[in-house]
Amino acid sequence: MAHFELLHKEKSTAARLGRLKTCHGFVETPCFMPVATQGTVKTLSPQELLEANAQIILSNAYHLFLRPGIEVIRKAGGLHKFMSCSLPILTDSGGYQIFSLALLRRVTDEGVEFQSHFDGARNFLTPEDVLDIQLALGSDIIMPLDECVHYPCPKDYAQRAMQRTLDWVKRTQKAACKFLGDANQQRPLLFGIVQGATYDDLRQECIQQLVELNLDGLAIGGVSVGEPKQLRQEIIEFSCRFLPSDKPRYLMGMGMPEDILAAVEAGVDMLDCVVPTRYGRNGTAFTSVGRITVRNAPYIEDFQPLDPACNCYTCRNFSRAYLRHLFNCEEMLGLRLVSLHNVHFFLKLLKDIRQAIQEDSFSEFKEGFLSRYNTMAKK
Amino acid sequence: MAHFELLHKEKSTAARLGRLKTCHGFVETPCFMPVATQGTVKTLSPQELLEANAQIILSNAYHLFLRPGIEVIRKAGGLHKFMSCSLPILTDSGGYQIFSLALLRRVTDEGVEFQSHFDGARNFLTPEDVLDIQLALGSDIIMPLDECVHYPCPKDYAQRAMQRTLDWVKRTQKAACKFLGDANQQRPLLFGIVQGATYDDLRQECIQQLVELNLDGLAIGGVSVGEPKQLRQEIIEFSCRFLPSDKPRYLMGMGMPEDILAAVEAGVDMLDCVVPTRYGRNGTAFTSVGRITVRNAPYIEDFQPLDPACNCYTCRNFSRAYLRHLFNCEEMLGLRLVSLHNVHFFLKLLKDIRQAIQEDSFSEFKEGFLSRYNTMAKK
Repeated sequence: MAHFELLHKEKSTAARLGRLKTCHGFVETPCFMPVATQGTVKTLSPQELLEANAQIILSNAYHLFLRPGIEVIRKAGGLHKFMSCSLPILTDSGGYQIFSLALLRRVTDEGVEFQSHFDGARNFLTPEDVLDIQLALGSDIIMPLDECVHYPCPKDYAQRAMQRTLDWVKRTQKAACKFLGDANQQRPLLFGIVQGATYDDLRQECIQQLVELNLDGLAIGGVSVGEPKQLRQEIIEFSCRFLPSDKPRYLMGMGMPEDILAAVEAGVDMLDCVVPTRYGRNGTAFTSVGRITVRNAPYIEDFQPLDPACNCYTCRNFSRAYLRHLFNCEEMLGLRLVSLHNVHFFLKLLKDIRQAIQEDSFSEFKEGFLSRYNTMAKK
Repeated sequence: MAHFELLHKEKSTAARLGRLKTCHGFVETPCFMPVATQGTVKTLSPQELLEANAQIILSNAYHLFLRPGIEVIRKAGGLHKFMSCSLPILTDSGGYQIFSLALLRRVTDEGVEFQSHFDGARNFLTPEDVLDIQLALGSDIIMPLDECVHYPCPKDYAQRAMQRTLDWVKRTQKAACKFLGDANQQRPLLFGIVQGATYDDLRQECIQQLVELNLDGLAIGGVSVGEPKQLRQEIIEFSCRFLPSDKPRYLMGMGMPEDILAAVEAGVDMLDCVVPTRYGRNGTAFTSVGRITVRNAPYIEDFQPLDPACNCYTCRNFSRAYLRHLFNCEEMLGLRLVSLHNVHFFLKLLKDIRQAIQEDSFSEFKEGFLSRYNTMAKK
């Protein structure tokens, strides 16, 4: 039995409805993964994630390797037990983090040497090491080490990075053959990552080679690295045209509600982004009529919930005026409550998206959502 | 019908079991009030307080007067609605805060002039103003403005401050006569505050005059202001001997578990302290075998809960190793989870105390608790 089942293709767009089977249960796609970089979705408890109907979360092998260290989590019985989370967990390999956060990195065909971004400790990791780390974490979905380039990137360098990414996923797959070959369906999934910067031919070549490996899913990497928004959307749409329809497609590290809608329309099945909690900690809430920054003065005596259309714990119980007071007094409950609302908002958006795909009304849904969502911006 | 019912006097100590009726429900005494200084028990949601079996919380009129301002809370429909808390709320008058936090205070018989401790704004408040503020907040238990002196305090100044405190409570009672005289039992309660610094005769005189006013409860104020611990306990015991047995006795702003036990043994019915959340935010947990500072290195691979004897959400789900990781990475969830545990620990202690009083075994309970609680200190 395949781990991914394509349930429905929307009639007038490339949007898809699917179901992904993991060791920790099923995930309905398209899905949004709240980000637990350091083994916690910032400010929120695992219970709150369940109550917000999260289906899967993302964590970062790079961060957990540095702190608390893999041995601690292995001894704890894996990441699920360590953070007390029963949801499926996808772990990022650290490729993106090493290229964006680490100091003094040096890439060779063998692997990556880098210094920890917080204490300067020197490390060298091969693709096999990165697989072992994620196996020790007990990840449900493993991402291989990749080389992620910035924008703009000369074509010859983009080609070398893409080729290296392909070599590394092959090494990862070889090292993982023991569990991948196991007839037992209760195994972690291994995805491949499409690189190739902004060059269509490189992306296409990368996809073709990845398809031959028959991995469990394919991710669009190397986006949201500084390129213009229009170019990014073209890369996503172009990639989706070549990605096989029977595998889940994961767009890494994006995005805003409008980006999510555009990506799903192009055929993306999985997304993750730190935006809900990062904005939440700054006091900015996503609402059905746009973003509001609740710490601002206009909300001093605004006794409405953040979003009258929302049913989350925050909106059921607290006013903008109270949240504004909490931010004004630097009370941590404010960060929690807005983060909780934002995560709820994103998960509800994906739920509504899935329903619209099921009903073959994705375009109408998207138009209606964006029309309301742009209300604040028009004011 | 009286608002306070004395249910049982423990046979071999002065500890008492009682029940206090407020507009927001009954409170079993002895009780501990978690502190919501700025309209939030730091890091915790109202739902978490309910789940930890909090019966009543304390908030501060001084802080709320400064931020967000009383008009905001009045328009919100009162403090309970503003902070979405259905529990009874006792509000401190701000006497202690004005004397400890405010800048450039000037006390006259009329009232107190002070500058806000965070923006320097100049304010003048009379006892009548402070009553009005607490009425606007919708407090269940109102504390009158008092003059709280530091330790050591010359006797002549302590006497003047005590006399002023008495004058102010009389003015407060007069201003409150409209609701106090109402036959309707659904009214806020007004307590008096015993001052007199470290002078027994002043404390005794203050109590005698307060008793004549027939207030709803009496508080021991002006403790924990720098005096030695032994002297503080003597003041508490001395005061309790003179306080009427048919009124609730509230010891203001204390304390550690051992202080709580000593105060209850002397006959105190109500306590509040910021310790559970303040220590929680620093990563120090109260456990049945003593305090542990979970951010420390010994806990890196300690997979026990904070307190194996505890049944709170934190202890049911997370290890010391995970909490240590959260503090090490400055993740807010760590502060939340340890604060939640600590509040739970204090509330459970008071619950156990009530049971021991009921069973006339307070001394044995206290001895057993302290013997276990001092385990870590002995190591």
